[in-house]
Amino acid sequence: MINMNSNDMTLKPVGYVSSPFKKRGDAPSQGVQTNEISTINIYEEYKDAIDGLSKGDYIFVLCWFDKSDRTVIKARRRGNPENPLQGVFSLRSPNRPNPISLTLVEILEIEDSVLKVKGLEAFDNTPVVDIKPYSKTVDEK
Amino acid sequence: MINMNSNDMTLKPVGYVSSPFKKRGDAPSQGVQTNEISTINIYEEYKDAIDGLSKGDYIFVLCWFDKSDRTVIKARRRGNPENPLQGVFSLRSPNRPNPISLTLVEILEIEDSVLKVKGLEAFDNTPVVDIKPYSKTVDEK
Repeated sequence: MINMNSNDMTLKPVGYVSSPFKKRGDAPSQGVQTNEISTINIYEEYKDAIDGLSKGDYIFVLCWFDKSDRTVIKARRRGNPENPLQGVFSLRSPNRPNPISLTLVEILEIEDSVLKVKGLEAFDNTPVVDIKPYSKTVDEK
Repeated sequence: MINMNSNDMTLKPVGYVSSPFKKRGDAPSQGVQTNEISTINIYEEYKDAIDGLSKGDYIFVLCWFDKSDRTVIKARRRGNPENPLQGVFSLRSPNRPNPISLTLVEILEIEDSVLKVKGLEAFDNTPVVDIKPYSKTVDEK
């Protein structure tokens, strides 16, 4: 059961989010619930990696939710405190062993190494770890 | 430009993939191109995290593509060696600063801590870092 290929699984921040969500309670549970504008600020070293992205594109933004509790294995679905406990892999809760967020957003504007996006639910200053182009063929059921 | 919240961004493998793809060339570029069956083997410690998932559900599987080249910033879209270089954030290439894969798969069967799935393109023995339920509301454009 031991996997020997798991060495060096350390993420490097490629940028960070600037958003109006400063503290717990500010941010919606899902990005789709907000029309607020956030920016993704890509670090100089990774600037060329956004070449090929354009205004109007939909992208998945993967962040590192550094305020999450990584010890949580079961949680309740939001909305009702009487919801039953279920595994975090069946929920989109930020609390999970590896708190990587996944949010589909629209690019409103790109200026230099800054992407202005709509639909991100990340706190201000959250590290960004990856961006992937959305594809109807592979990401939709 | 320095983000102070980026400490401890080390991923923990929560399981690993068993698949028929043993080496480069075996695996399709996208999971949607295969009907091969893979299994996701969840480690004992994280077993309760899959509680709430069922046969027939669609899930996003996030793996750590440990054979990827993390220094690649620009690459060519597959299919034609004359395709222009573009940033890896505009591609789904496994070579990227943080080689986290994102694949939508269908759960065919769950037995104990093993998920049998269709549509995964990961090599045999690839570390799994997260599973998220797919939601039409938040993941589709």
